[in-house]
Amino acid sequence: MTSIDYIIAVDAMGGDDSPDKVIHGIDLFLQEDKNIFFNIYGKEDLVKKSLRKFKHINPNNFKIFNCETKIEDKNSVRDAIKIGKDSSMWRAIDSVKNNESHLIISSGNTGALLVISKLLIKMMDGIDKPAIAGLWPNLKGTSIVLDLGANIEFNEKNYIEFSKIGSELYKVIFDKLEPVVGLLNVGSEEIKGHEELKSSFNKLSEQKNNFLFHGYLEGNEIKNGDVDVVITDGFSGNIALKTAEGTVNFITKEIKKIFSGSLFGKFCYLISFFIFKKIKNSLDPRKYNGGIFLGLNSPVIKSHGGADALAFYYSLKLSAKILRGNLVKRIKANLEHEQNQ
Amino acid sequence: MTSIDYIIAVDAMGGDDSPDKVIHGIDLFLQEDKNIFFNIYGKEDLVKKSLRKFKHINPNNFKIFNCETKIEDKNSVRDAIKIGKDSSMWRAIDSVKNNESHLIISSGNTGALLVISKLLIKMMDGIDKPAIAGLWPNLKGTSIVLDLGANIEFNEKNYIEFSKIGSELYKVIFDKLEPVVGLLNVGSEEIKGHEELKSSFNKLSEQKNNFLFHGYLEGNEIKNGDVDVVITDGFSGNIALKTAEGTVNFITKEIKKIFSGSLFGKFCYLISFFIFKKIKNSLDPRKYNGGIFLGLNSPVIKSHGGADALAFYYSLKLSAKILRGNLVKRIKANLEHEQNQ
Repeated sequence: MTSIDYIIAVDAMGGDDSPDKVIHGIDLFLQEDKNIFFNIYGKEDLVKKSLRKFKHINPNNFKIFNCETKIEDKNSVRDAIKIGKDSSMWRAIDSVKNNESHLIISSGNTGALLVISKLLIKMMDGIDKPAIAGLWPNLKGTSIVLDLGANIEFNEKNYIEFSKIGSELYKVIFDKLEPVVGLLNVGSEEIKGHEELKSSFNKLSEQKNNFLFHGYLEGNEIKNGDVDVVITDGFSGNIALKTAEGTVNFITKEIKKIFSGSLFGKFCYLISFFIFKKIKNSLDPRKYNGGIFLGLNSPVIKSHGGADALAFYYSLKLSAKILRGNLVKRIKANLEHEQNQ
Repeated sequence: MTSIDYIIAVDAMGGDDSPDKVIHGIDLFLQEDKNIFFNIYGKEDLVKKSLRKFKHINPNNFKIFNCETKIEDKNSVRDAIKIGKDSSMWRAIDSVKNNESHLIISSGNTGALLVISKLLIKMMDGIDKPAIAGLWPNLKGTSIVLDLGANIEFNEKNYIEFSKIGSELYKVIFDKLEPVVGLLNVGSEEIKGHEELKSSFNKLSEQKNNFLFHGYLEGNEIKNGDVDVVITDGFSGNIALKTAEGTVNFITKEIKKIFSGSLFGKFCYLISFFIFKKIKNSLDPRKYNGGIFLGLNSPVIKSHGGADALAFYYSLKLSAKILRGNLVKRIKANLEHEQNQ
């Protein structure tokens, strides 16, 4: 019999093609790792129908909790809170609050997930706001960027808090003792940064940190990989993330257009088919799926609504890593250590 | 004899490889268009040495103004103003102020160019702040994005002003009667935008504009080409621009790495050589070189410091288009029309 390390609460109903992609993602995960148990929240008949399609998921590793309603992407957060108490998302989050699960993952409405998690799981002592962190591939490996959209307004305390908790996340995922942390800023000397950014820079330069402080970096430097943890306000971070997505999409389409624009191009593409497959695999955004909500008393993971089963599987792997690395405990210990200094 | 339409003041000393790349860029420009005259500001002996290398540039089209000093990239704006009065940049800007030139272009220190231009050429009546606008290739053509870094703090008046002047710029460059203007924002409903952004949205939705108002767009939508003029604050705009640059660089390197990683890959690359040349040409950032400072009484163009002669040539073509389209006059007429309504 396998021993269970951790229990993950899954909102099976959020995002496109759910619950199929969610159950398929769990099935892919369990092929590699049977030490995680899944509390699955969703419409029981649909979940059961999905389960019949996949063979690695068996009753030792899951339990279904029937939820008749779901929060839709189009629901406002206010509506989600009002009508959502019996929804798969709410009940999955609630199971973490009640210590029945250790982490909650959903592909549903981001705003609702953020606000309901804050409401039920609550913020850690000493942390003002939650942040959404994401994985970014770079030329040397992967960096973490936060905040990707949880907070529009930002002050010095947020920059410093997010530097601390972001670096703990990096340690847990990438097993590096002293990650390099940088603040995202604009270029020219004259017009450099908000006041809050400047004072955060000064404070982080002076104080002892649980990371190496790099100073500022600019948008084009994110992809270099010299900085492991990139700290920015949620407005700029979200725009940077989406702009990078749009740019990848643009380049991919341009390349396709030119290869398919001539007979010779089509021939070259055919010849290079396996090389292109390798490139596609190397740039595959599904490997970086999963927004990590930081600063709450338990980890909350947002899988991309449009992501497929493989992408969901990657975010489950990320979830398991976060649980096994004791992320929340480490962040709390780090914050207490600070307070006692 | 050719008749001269406009006079462009050129700071020949800014950026890498100057004055060579500047003179070479002018030479390329004059091969196509002899109706522009260049007032060249720089160290006379260096400029003359450069001139001997290129054959299309002749005395009918330029005059050299000897300037012994130059503003360096490392100079702070304060230092630039203090020591820069005899510099090539200052004197080029001053020639516009004195109606000896119609437009000034420089590859030098952005902050200094912005502040000295503001000091000498002054803001248009009714415009609070200058903006830096840039050309972005998209799936349908080219859009204009502003502000790319002139202003960190932004309010409703700036969003509305920049929508107006940005759309006039679009009309002049792309000859479209009613450009589509959008405000760059973040995604999720709950966390949508600053207060200033929301009130600008409401105002632009209600009032009569000199463009079609699209509403909000997100970072990934810039590249779709549904919006011609993208308005954002200088902080987010600069981060978006740099992040897009970094992403292009990242993808290009990844593709190169995979093609050159195996003998078969190298073979495929050789076969597809002309296709890749076409792709490189289609994605060439030099075609989009040139930051346009808007809101001043005369146009000021910033060529990328690291850009080469061909890139400088493209920014000269852009400059000529802006002059011939009477950009400043059109913006002023538009603003007066508003005031008289």
